Amino acid sequence: MFGLSSGHAFPGCSCCRPLFSGLDAVAGSPRSMTPTNIEALGESRRAGVPKSDGPVIDCHGHYTTEPQELLDWRKRQIAGINDPSQMPSVDSLRISDDQLRASVEGAQLRLQRERGTSVTIFSPRASGMSHHIGDASVSAAWSRVSNDLIYRLTQLYPKNFAGVCQLPQSPGTAPDNCIGELVRCVTELGFVGCNLNPDPTGGYWTEPPLTDRWWYPLYEKMVELDVPAMIHVSAAANRAFHTTGSHYINGDTTAFMQFLMSDLFKDFPTLRFIIPHGGGAIPYHWGRYRGIAQDQKKPPLSELVLKNIFFDTCVYHQPGIDLLTRVIPAENILFASEMLGAVKGIDPETGHNYDDTRRYIEGSTILTPDEKRAVFAGNARRVYSRMATLPFGNP
Amino acid sequence: MFGLSSGHAFPGCSCCRPLFSGLDAVAGSPRSMTPTNIEALGESRRAGVPKSDGPVIDCHGHYTTEPQELLDWRKRQIAGINDPSQMPSVDSLRISDDQLRASVEGAQLRLQRERGTSVTIFSPRASGMSHHIGDASVSAAWSRVSNDLIYRLTQLYPKNFAGVCQLPQSPGTAPDNCIGELVRCVTELGFVGCNLNPDPTGGYWTEPPLTDRWWYPLYEKMVELDVPAMIHVSAAANRAFHTTGSHYINGDTTAFMQFLMSDLFKDFPTLRFIIPHGGGAIPYHWGRYRGIAQDQKKPPLSELVLKNIFFDTCVYHQPGIDLLTRVIPAENILFASEMLGAVKGIDPETGHNYDDTRRYIEGSTILTPDEKRAVFAGNARRVYSRMATLPFGNP
Repeated sequence: MFGLSSGHAFPGCSCCRPLFSGLDAVAGSPRSMTPTNIEALGESRRAGVPKSDGPVIDCHGHYTTEPQELLDWRKRQIAGINDPSQMPSVDSLRISDDQLRASVEGAQLRLQRERGTSVTIFSPRASGMSHHIGDASVSAAWSRVSNDLIYRLTQLYPKNFAGVCQLPQSPGTAPDNCIGELVRCVTELGFVGCNLNPDPTGGYWTEPPLTDRWWYPLYEKMVELDVPAMIHVSAAANRAFHTTGSHYINGDTTAFMQFLMSDLFKDFPTLRFIIPHGGGAIPYHWGRYRGIAQDQKKPPLSELVLKNIFFDTCVYHQPGIDLLTRVIPAENILFASEMLGAVKGIDPETGHNYDDTRRYIEGSTILTPDEKRAVFAGNARRVYSRMATLPFGNP
Repeated sequence: MFGLSSGHAFPGCSCCRPLFSGLDAVAGSPRSMTPTNIEALGESRRAGVPKSDGPVIDCHGHYTTEPQELLDWRKRQIAGINDPSQMPSVDSLRISDDQLRASVEGAQLRLQRERGTSVTIFSPRASGMSHHIGDASVSAAWSRVSNDLIYRLTQLYPKNFAGVCQLPQSPGTAPDNCIGELVRCVTELGFVGCNLNPDPTGGYWTEPPLTDRWWYPLYEKMVELDVPAMIHVSAAANRAFHTTGSHYINGDTTAFMQFLMSDLFKDFPTLRFIIPHGGGAIPYHWGRYRGIAQDQKKPPLSELVLKNIFFDTCVYHQPGIDLLTRVIPAENILFASEMLGAVKGIDPETGHNYDDTRRYIEGSTILTPDEKRAVFAGNARRVYSRMATLPFGNP
């Protein structure tokens, strides 16, 4: 049911294309792990960007500028599902450090400099996870090669990137199978969190809700490791949905509502989730959710979920950010851009990139200076608590 | 796949319970079609409700206070799917006019008076449609009895209710099958529109997108009859979703994104859709959608969709309504409350019912007085153009 024929899927769709294909041509340099830090703060910035008086942690960045070799490896892997003779080994992927550098220096790192971001919490391309393709063994190998590239980037640019891992989820497979890769990424590779897909089917939603005990072994390990998960679906395999336009946003809304109706955080008081894309539809309908919880005789949302759930700022216009900051406590908001991500253009209404979300936070008349500092860095340090263990300390 | 075992479904779930069960007991009076109009404007209102200087059309009301006889009929119908001997006929439903009056006078009509609503565009309970139950013949009979009750209410209270019909959709059945019931309701019963379910499966989303030619025959008839459709999913049969908390909102977001990616309105320039619940997540992420359209080289959303798509005001807090009115042109916003609907309680932050949405419009500092009049009535008259044919003329 969830094979290659199920609608559009990475790597063929427009959501999943490399964004900077010109960069893919750089190759062949000798591998080197010498760190090349890009100091964002203190560098000159594009004219007109408002100043910040502290560090800026972008908690939601994806490696969407992968070298072509990675995409080719994935193509062979997908071909190998039906023709095992084509299945590549994890070790067969060859990408040089220079290729990795070239893939980010004109893209994520340039934008970090231009926009004044100190560090990006960085994970594999979200739509690329495509857990609906193949079985758990396919997801395991694909997660491993994807996470290993993130790790190498965190080693090449230890002040610019903190790693977050893709999990080897697969439809119908209990999430216990993700524990090994999570432990490897956190304890061996120094990652600070994971991305958790509430719907590995890509839009058919046949897994148990996130509040089902099906997921508990993974949560136990997250708590033990003290790492949060960003709730993030992947490419839509169901043609009803547009990956970045509706499937992502619906995934966020669905997950929040599952949490609201549950007692999950009684069982896991320290479990932490980030709901990206500004929390989907949730803040816009905050009155609806407060009212539904009240009708269900549940405590106020501040007690019920806001000790455990956080929203990012991937909302691409000032009115949306203003709504978010009006209704959600500042301590529950983490700065993020989702770049290079869903929207690439320049907003003709502002003359700036839609995803230059820092401007909306800087431009907020709702947040106090202290709250802006918390949104820009303090909250991310608290939620991604293992950031403190990384080379840059507490950016 | 979409039978009774598919998760929770009307009439067992909490979303689907009668709200005023005490009213169901009134029965046995002789049937009478004598109209009993309740004049909302000019009557005394609850203290503290701001004044309006014109009529108020609520474009989104559901008959959620149905007499028990209707729910019992539906139970027998569901039982009849597996045991044809129990299948009731359409004609076997017996509900008196007094029962109908009792079902709305202490509920919808009382709230119309208290909140100063002139007329409600009224349709069967949305979650009750449950198109995933049974086959097209089951949906046909259920739609007919449900719509007939709405008709009788419009005859009993011709100044208070305008009818909108449920369609006999069924998973996998081409929507051509809905044309007969649509024509009957509009031409024989005087209805002004229909509710269209983009996902008759109740959360598995296996139908073609709303922009597929699968739906075109129905659209042709809508255009010919000059009636709009409110896009409205029904009860969630998929346990991943909460009916009113995520499935409804996701349905709205999904439909809009389908429209955005299509050329549907080139084929049907006069086709009109209302996306309820404030447009799902759309206004909150308006920058995202403007940016996605731009990346796709499409015209601005004002040209691409806003001649054909309208949003209601079922957003249950002032910040949400303020966001809606900041980003969506006033001419695309129709007043609605969704009562008696998803949220029944009183907001402790305001002391008023969450779904008393008129207060948020009255309280808006963004809309001008002219725009408020358009939101309250003028836009509904334009979109539901057949309102002008009803006994109350143009409220």
